[in-house]
Amino acid sequence: MSGWHATVLTLYPEMFPGPLAHALAGRALAADLWRLVVVDIRDFATDKHRSVDDTPAGGGPGMVMKADVTAAAIDHAAREADIRPRLLLTPRGRPLGQNRIRELAAGPGVILICGRFEGIDERVVEARDLEEVSLGDFVMSGGEIPALALIDACVRLLPGVMGASASGDEESFEAGLLEYPHYTRPQVFEGRAIPEVLLSGDHGKVAAWRRSEAERITRERRPDLWSAYVGSKTTDSGTGVDNMTGLK
Amino acid sequence: MSGWHATVLTLYPEMFPGPLAHALAGRALAADLWRLVVVDIRDFATDKHRSVDDTPAGGGPGMVMKADVTAAAIDHAAREADIRPRLLLTPRGRPLGQNRIRELAAGPGVILICGRFEGIDERVVEARDLEEVSLGDFVMSGGEIPALALIDACVRLLPGVMGASASGDEESFEAGLLEYPHYTRPQVFEGRAIPEVLLSGDHGKVAAWRRSEAERITRERRPDLWSAYVGSKTTDSGTGVDNMTGLK
Repeated sequence: MSGWHATVLTLYPEMFPGPLAHALAGRALAADLWRLVVVDIRDFATDKHRSVDDTPAGGGPGMVMKADVTAAAIDHAAREADIRPRLLLTPRGRPLGQNRIRELAAGPGVILICGRFEGIDERVVEARDLEEVSLGDFVMSGGEIPALALIDACVRLLPGVMGASASGDEESFEAGLLEYPHYTRPQVFEGRAIPEVLLSGDHGKVAAWRRSEAERITRERRPDLWSAYVGSKTTDSGTGVDNMTGLK
Repeated sequence: MSGWHATVLTLYPEMFPGPLAHALAGRALAADLWRLVVVDIRDFATDKHRSVDDTPAGGGPGMVMKADVTAAAIDHAAREADIRPRLLLTPRGRPLGQNRIRELAAGPGVILICGRFEGIDERVVEARDLEEVSLGDFVMSGGEIPALALIDACVRLLPGVMGASASGDEESFEAGLLEYPHYTRPQVFEGRAIPEVLLSGDHGKVAAWRRSEAERITRERRPDLWSAYVGSKTTDSGTGVDNMTGLK
């Protein structure tokens, strides 16, 4: 049996595998490099109407996903010896970063709970020790697309998925920096030429230019990442960075 | 003809509408509350192999999407009078927040360019004035799932989509805070009771509790949002906040 195993709990099982059936993740799925199990939370409703939600205690608009139904679905998905982390996708969670993605990809897999409506009864989060994670500081209609995003980000890091032709070593966040810009043929596009250094054949100069561009872009666009990068460099090596002039 | 109009440029048109065909966004799509057009970038390749990518200038692993092909697809999608913003989904972009989502939802729609492989030739970004936006600080295999996320976040805000039964007024980020916790029946779940105040019927007390919980959660989980919230409150009203003791 192949390794990395994602279980998704949702009210919309028809959304899966969706985009994950295609391209890199889809080929890896077809090649058994990872597994996907989708659980319909509605199957765990206990009344004749198969209710999964109810009105919020304290009043207000919308509906809240019921604790008992959601917990029963989680208990079904996560049997006794299942050590996979259980993540709830919600804008109230900790922002997902590449470090957590790498940890999740290196583990046995994930159990993902997708909220809908106003959210899930808070007592499930506590009673089932869910890790609340957020894709970003904006609100979506449910946790399903965030679940697709999280799985895609993990799957591409699994052994054998990207292959030797591509590499994650120099991409954004791997060195705490955004990635340098890319160019390919034609050499001139609408009067814009590829930077000369990239055509020089001098590997040392190319590497230095790329590092400097990655630093420039990070400094300009993401002062938050840049501060962390500068701090870690100083701590790690005991030396400062070469060029602090652009630091905001 | 209905209003909000998303055009997606991708090498994987089969990924769309994908999850957006279902639930809230899917019902709104079926009801013509928004429109989706998908453009296959490969249709704009000019050689007999229909190439869309080439090796990176300067060497290194992976492939880069060609400037000429990508620009031709953009020019096809965005005709003369098209004032929709053109967004490139990339981890190198500005992190997407609810403010930008609200702006995009209030406008005529979006043109979204989905990168694959190592990325798109930088000269397209410059020549076509693309706005680079990022879903979060992690890397996905392409821009398609981020595009689905962005569209979903916008569509739910369009007039008529959420309806009167739900509300965006109190959700995360609307007041600069994460949302308060939700509860619904049963009153006791596995020994855990719904907080008493929510069952009191006292609307003022319920509102005060919810605000205080939203503040507590934001303070504990997101010192960055909390600082901004405290700052804006001080600036707006000229008064401080009530409880600064938990501020990190």
